[in-house]
Amino acid sequence: MSLIVQKFGGSSVANKERVMNVARRIVDTYKNSNSVVVVVSAQGDTTDELIEKAKEITNSPSKREMDMLLSTGEQISISLLAMAIHELGYPAISLTGWQAGMNTDSSYSSARIGNIDVSRINKELDHKNIVIVAGFQGINRFDDITTLGRGGSDTTAVALAAALRADLCEIYTDVDGVYTADPRVVKTATKMDTVSYDEMLELASMGANVLHNRSVEMAKKYNVNLCVRSSLNNNPGTIVREVKDVEKMLVKGVAHDYDVARIALCDIEDKPGVAFRIFSLLSQKGINVDIILQSIGRENKKDISFTVTASNLENAVKILEDNKESIGFNEIKTRDTVAKVSIVGAGMVNNPGVAAKMFEALYEAGVNIHMISTSEIKVSVLISERNVEKAVNAIHDKFNLGN
Amino acid sequence: MSLIVQKFGGSSVANKERVMNVARRIVDTYKNSNSVVVVVSAQGDTTDELIEKAKEITNSPSKREMDMLLSTGEQISISLLAMAIHELGYPAISLTGWQAGMNTDSSYSSARIGNIDVSRINKELDHKNIVIVAGFQGINRFDDITTLGRGGSDTTAVALAAALRADLCEIYTDVDGVYTADPRVVKTATKMDTVSYDEMLELASMGANVLHNRSVEMAKKYNVNLCVRSSLNNNPGTIVREVKDVEKMLVKGVAHDYDVARIALCDIEDKPGVAFRIFSLLSQKGINVDIILQSIGRENKKDISFTVTASNLENAVKILEDNKESIGFNEIKTRDTVAKVSIVGAGMVNNPGVAAKMFEALYEAGVNIHMISTSEIKVSVLISERNVEKAVNAIHDKFNLGN
Repeated sequence: MSLIVQKFGGSSVANKERVMNVARRIVDTYKNSNSVVVVVSAQGDTTDELIEKAKEITNSPSKREMDMLLSTGEQISISLLAMAIHELGYPAISLTGWQAGMNTDSSYSSARIGNIDVSRINKELDHKNIVIVAGFQGINRFDDITTLGRGGSDTTAVALAAALRADLCEIYTDVDGVYTADPRVVKTATKMDTVSYDEMLELASMGANVLHNRSVEMAKKYNVNLCVRSSLNNNPGTIVREVKDVEKMLVKGVAHDYDVARIALCDIEDKPGVAFRIFSLLSQKGINVDIILQSIGRENKKDISFTVTASNLENAVKILEDNKESIGFNEIKTRDTVAKVSIVGAGMVNNPGVAAKMFEALYEAGVNIHMISTSEIKVSVLISERNVEKAVNAIHDKFNLGN
Repeated sequence: MSLIVQKFGGSSVANKERVMNVARRIVDTYKNSNSVVVVVSAQGDTTDELIEKAKEITNSPSKREMDMLLSTGEQISISLLAMAIHELGYPAISLTGWQAGMNTDSSYSSARIGNIDVSRINKELDHKNIVIVAGFQGINRFDDITTLGRGGSDTTAVALAAALRADLCEIYTDVDGVYTADPRVVKTATKMDTVSYDEMLELASMGANVLHNRSVEMAKKYNVNLCVRSSLNNNPGTIVREVKDVEKMLVKGVAHDYDVARIALCDIEDKPGVAFRIFSLLSQKGINVDIILQSIGRENKKDISFTVTASNLENAVKILEDNKESIGFNEIKTRDTVAKVSIVGAGMVNNPGVAAKMFEALYEAGVNIHMISTSEIKVSVLISERNVEKAVNAIHDKFNLGN
C-alpha cells in the first residue's frame, strides 16, 4: 500500500464532466489499495472571475482581502470533487488550506509554506477517506487566509507529499509529460521518461510551463518523487527525480520563452558599484533580471544589457529613468520583440562542446544571437521572436532529441 | 460611542454599485463615532448558483460538503465589502464564521449557534477596524464549516449583537420596516414604529418575510435591540423590542402565507394516542405541523385536519400512507390551494372580541373560513388562495390599520 498525492489543475475540473473524470481517476488509484491525498485548484476561469469582481470595486485591493476572496475558488472545487467521489460510492472529505494544517508566513498573495500540521489529514486517511485538499492556500499565525501565488497548487501538492512522506506525487496536467521541446513548435519533440530536478528547474524557468519552479525546488529539497502526467489518458508521464549518474552528457530538451524584453543602458561611467546600484534598485521593486551582459569598456564608458519579463519592462524603465543621475547612464534602449531559447541537460558543464554545437545549429539556420548566458546545466540565447520556431527546430535536430 | 451590528442581505450587495452603497452607509455609521460590526450574506443569486453546481454532480450531496461549498458565497461578499470600505478610505477587515469565533453544533445545513468567541472581533474593534463578518456560517468542534440554514445571516447578526452586548442590531432589507400588512396586497398598509418580540415572532411565522423567526427568538432571549430598516433610504425603520404595557388591545398587523397545504385524515378510530402517533411520526421526519383541527367524533370515528408547508405535503402524505394501518384512518384528503391569513397583536388574549371582529370582516367580504387557530397574540384562519387579497384588505380596513 502506497501513499500517493495527486494534483489536478483548474482546467482538469473546469466543468461537471471533468470533475467526474477526475473523481474516477482518483477512485481507480484508491481501489488499488492506495491512500490518496488530492490537491485541486480553482475551476477553470474562477480565479480570473473573482479578480474581476475585486477590480470592479477597487484598483488597489488589500492583499489580505484578495486572499480571502481568491481562496473561495479552491474551496468550491474541493467540495464538488468530494461530492463527485461520494457519487461514485467512495469515501472522501474536503479540507481547506487551514483545515489541512497548511501554515504559511503572512506574505499575502505570495505566502511561503512553513510547518505543515498533517494531523487532520492523517486522521482522515486512517478513516479510509480520500482527502481532498484546497491547493494554493494556507493560514498565517493570525488565523488569516493566505495564498501562495503563481503555481501555488503544485507547491501545495509537493509540500504535502514531503510532509506526509508520500511515496509519489503525481502532477496531472493537459500534456503527457515533459517534452524535449514544445510539441506545438517542434513536430519531432518526444516525451522524456525521466528528468532530474535541476534539469526540470532549468526547463521550468526557461519557459516550459509544465511545473512551477517553486514546486520543483521543494521536491528537490525534500527528495519527493514527482511524476508529471496527463489527466486525459493513462500514459505513464515523466518522472522527475534525483539523477546520480551524470557522466554522460545529455541535452535533455529545448525550451523557449517569449515573455522576455531586453533593456540596454548605454554609455555608463565605468566605476565600481554601478552594476550593484542598477540591479539592487530593480530587485527592491521586485523585478527579476535574467541574462546580464556587460560590454568591455572603452574610453571609461561601458554598456550594460539585461533581460526582464515583458510585463516588467515598463516598470523597470521608469525606475531606471528616475535614477538616471545616480546611475550615470546616457541612454536607455529597449526591445521587446525578443525571445529566449535554451538547451538544458545535467552534465553540460563538463562538455564545453555543447554550447558550440548549439551555436552551430543557429548559424546554419541563419539565426542571429543577441545575448548568451550559460549555467552548469543550460545554455540560453536571446534571439528575435520571429526566429524562435526555426531556432528551436534546428537545435532539436542538431542534438537528435527526436531520437 | 455605541457598538452597532448591521446586517445586509444578499440583494443589498448583489452588484458593485450596491456594495459601494452599503459601504457608504457603514462608513456613515462609523464616522458618527460608533464601533461597527457588519454581517453580510452571499451576493444575489450566488447561493443558488452554488447549489446548481452541486446538483450537476449529485442529487444527494453530503451536507458537510454542501456547507463547505455554500460558505464560499459569504466569504466572497465579506472580502468585496471590506475592499469597498478601504476604497472609501476607512479601515475594515473581513472575518469568516470560524475567524469570528462562531461556534456551532454539527448539524450541517441547519447548525445551531453555541458559544461565540468574540476575542478576534473585539481585537479588531480595538484597532478601530470596521469588522465584516460572514453571515450564515460557523464552525463545529471538529473544525469543520457549518451553515445555519434559512435566515442564517439574521441569526448571525442577532447572536453577535448579543455576544458583543451591542447597543443596537440593525437588519437592513429592501423594505422600510414591518408593515401592518403586505404593502403589495394592501395599499393602505402602514409601517409600524415599534413591535414587540412576540408580535414579530407571530408576524414572521405568519408569512411576513422581514425577519426570520430564529433571529427574533434569539433577540427576545438576549433582549437585543433590533431595528428593521431599508438599505435604500434613511427612513427610521421599525424597532423590535420588549413591550411591557399591553393593556391596550392592539392588532398590530395582518399577515398572509401562501406556503400552506392542508391534510385531512378521515374516519380515524376514536381511541387514545392517535393524535400523538400522527404528529410524532411527522416530527420525527422533521415536518412541522401548524394549525390542527379535530372534528367532534361520531360513531366512534373522527377526522383530524392539519396544515404543513406546501413543500412538505408530498413527504407527509407518504409517511402517513406508510403508517395507515397503525394510525387506523380510512382516507387522506389534501388541498394545496389554501392560504393562511393572520392578525397579530399583544394583548389579544384579553380581548375576545378581536377574533369575532376578524370573522365579521371575512363574512362581509364573502370569504369562507376552512380552519381557525388562535394563540395569545394572534388569530389565524385558513382560506382559499384566491380570497387572500380580498381577505387581507377587509381585515386591514376593519381594524383601521391604515393609520
